[in-house]
Amino acid sequence: MRALVYDGQLRLDSAYPMPEPDPGEALLRVTVAGICNTDLEITRGYMDFRGVVGHEFVGVVEWCADRALVGRRVVGEINCCCGTCPTCRAGNPTHCPRRTTLGISGRDGALAEYCVLPVANLHLVPDTVSDEQAVFVEPLAAALEVLEQVHVKPTHRAVVLGDGKLGLLVAQILRLSGCDLTVVGRHLDKLAHLQSMGIATCPAERAGTIQADIAVDCTGRSEGFAAARRMVRPRGTLVLKSTFHGDNTVNLTSVVVDEVTLLGSRCGPFAPALRLLAMRLVDVAPLITATFALDQALSAFEHATNRGALKVLVRP
Amino acid sequence: MRALVYDGQLRLDSAYPMPEPDPGEALLRVTVAGICNTDLEITRGYMDFRGVVGHEFVGVVEWCADRALVGRRVVGEINCCCGTCPTCRAGNPTHCPRRTTLGISGRDGALAEYCVLPVANLHLVPDTVSDEQAVFVEPLAAALEVLEQVHVKPTHRAVVLGDGKLGLLVAQILRLSGCDLTVVGRHLDKLAHLQSMGIATCPAERAGTIQADIAVDCTGRSEGFAAARRMVRPRGTLVLKSTFHGDNTVNLTSVVVDEVTLLGSRCGPFAPALRLLAMRLVDVAPLITATFALDQALSAFEHATNRGALKVLVRP
Repeated sequence: MRALVYDGQLRLDSAYPMPEPDPGEALLRVTVAGICNTDLEITRGYMDFRGVVGHEFVGVVEWCADRALVGRRVVGEINCCCGTCPTCRAGNPTHCPRRTTLGISGRDGALAEYCVLPVANLHLVPDTVSDEQAVFVEPLAAALEVLEQVHVKPTHRAVVLGDGKLGLLVAQILRLSGCDLTVVGRHLDKLAHLQSMGIATCPAERAGTIQADIAVDCTGRSEGFAAARRMVRPRGTLVLKSTFHGDNTVNLTSVVVDEVTLLGSRCGPFAPALRLLAMRLVDVAPLITATFALDQALSAFEHATNRGALKVLVRP
Repeated sequence: MRALVYDGQLRLDSAYPMPEPDPGEALLRVTVAGICNTDLEITRGYMDFRGVVGHEFVGVVEWCADRALVGRRVVGEINCCCGTCPTCRAGNPTHCPRRTTLGISGRDGALAEYCVLPVANLHLVPDTVSDEQAVFVEPLAAALEVLEQVHVKPTHRAVVLGDGKLGLLVAQILRLSGCDLTVVGRHLDKLAHLQSMGIATCPAERAGTIQADIAVDCTGRSEGFAAARRMVRPRGTLVLKSTFHGDNTVNLTSVVVDEVTLLGSRCGPFAPALRLLAMRLVDVAPLITATFALDQALSAFEHATNRGALKVLVRP
């Protein structure tokens, strides 16, 4: 099959071996896949991953032991856990120490004609949610993880740093709480889009005086931490959403002095993401920058690295 | 002025004394007022209140020491606190032991041509929010108080009991969290309206097997507690929203055995309610059953007691 592979360099392979489902797994024909910042970071060395990249997708079940699933449209949770270790049994399967992660760690990804995932990871996509919406379920779930971890109260003041793909999704999720929300960003067109949704915005260079109960760093850059730290009030919460290759230099003493809560935040729940898309409470259409065929996947990757680019989709 | 007065019986008074603002207060000309279940309960003896009823309103500032406010459209928080006691200083003004409450306790209400409130209680209504929306800010704030008190996670299963005015608002607020929500009610037309918003519903007689992380009793009736209690899983949370005249017979042992958290919930924050209305994330138009002139306020009250009636508005 055709697949976008990273093996030290990114290349389109037109004869990559078809994936073979293990027991309990389904073979999925990918309909649409999305390119995430994490994919870009992988090509910079993040996770030392080798294989087919891509973890945001919507597809159709091509083969599965449960015949009722064949032909159904699905999205899939990307962490594949053992189900038996203490972490899994404690209800934290996304933190299973033996996990593989689609297109990120130990398992080929979705920027290909086919991929495989455990049946337990699949969620049926309702007819009211299009492929172009459903491909956002994975990043939208990651945005929802903030609300899963933090009690964002309607009276809270919250700030999102970053007007990239994830920042815009986190902003759309936070606005639903009714909280007093500001998004700090660098792209006037994206900030204007947020304003049209009733979300307050602030250019990064004028954000110096913001003091929030909750700050969410979605900048995807090491500088994001210090900026977000300055915007959190004493005893407030700083949610870390950025994952990138390399280390940070941070001032942890200020975290101690101001008794700030730091909270790492990664993958989130798929079912609520599907519910919000079905109820039209999140609008992902404006986040699509371009769509490429799989044969043009290298160009798609190139396009996704452009400053200001949002979601680039690939159709196998 | 004309006012709807309860003094043991409900009557329309065409020559009620004009209210006079104390220092720090504003005189408000009421534009639209709403009738709440609490108003109906007052005529059954709730709070032993005597005076002008009504606490849901939108109005225009007629007189105020701050001349900049005169002529502005406002809604007003209904609890008037001392601002100096330990409760107020601890940030809980709605629980000030010396408080008066508009149309409910120690202070004439808003079902009249004019009312007075402290300036500190007022919130400007943005131009994008109509009078017919703004009159819902007080009950919508009360619905938001649930999210202020309880961390409703996107993965939670929640149930709202009651498809009356407050139940429908609480349901609209909870659906924004992305949680798995079911509303249990008795009125097919209201349940159909909820379904059109993507909210699952269940007729009361078939709700026996529901088990939720969070149940919110908005039935306004003493039977609501036991029904809600049965629907809360062990270690879940039961939010009590119903206020009515009289006592309840409840089984508290089951609360102990199942380690259920009971949470009383009353008035909530106005600013987020205004934000959600301005962003069109809550739709109050379908909740308006009828609008009456103040001269027909007794008929309006009568209409509000009808089974199935939702919000009845009064225009002075």
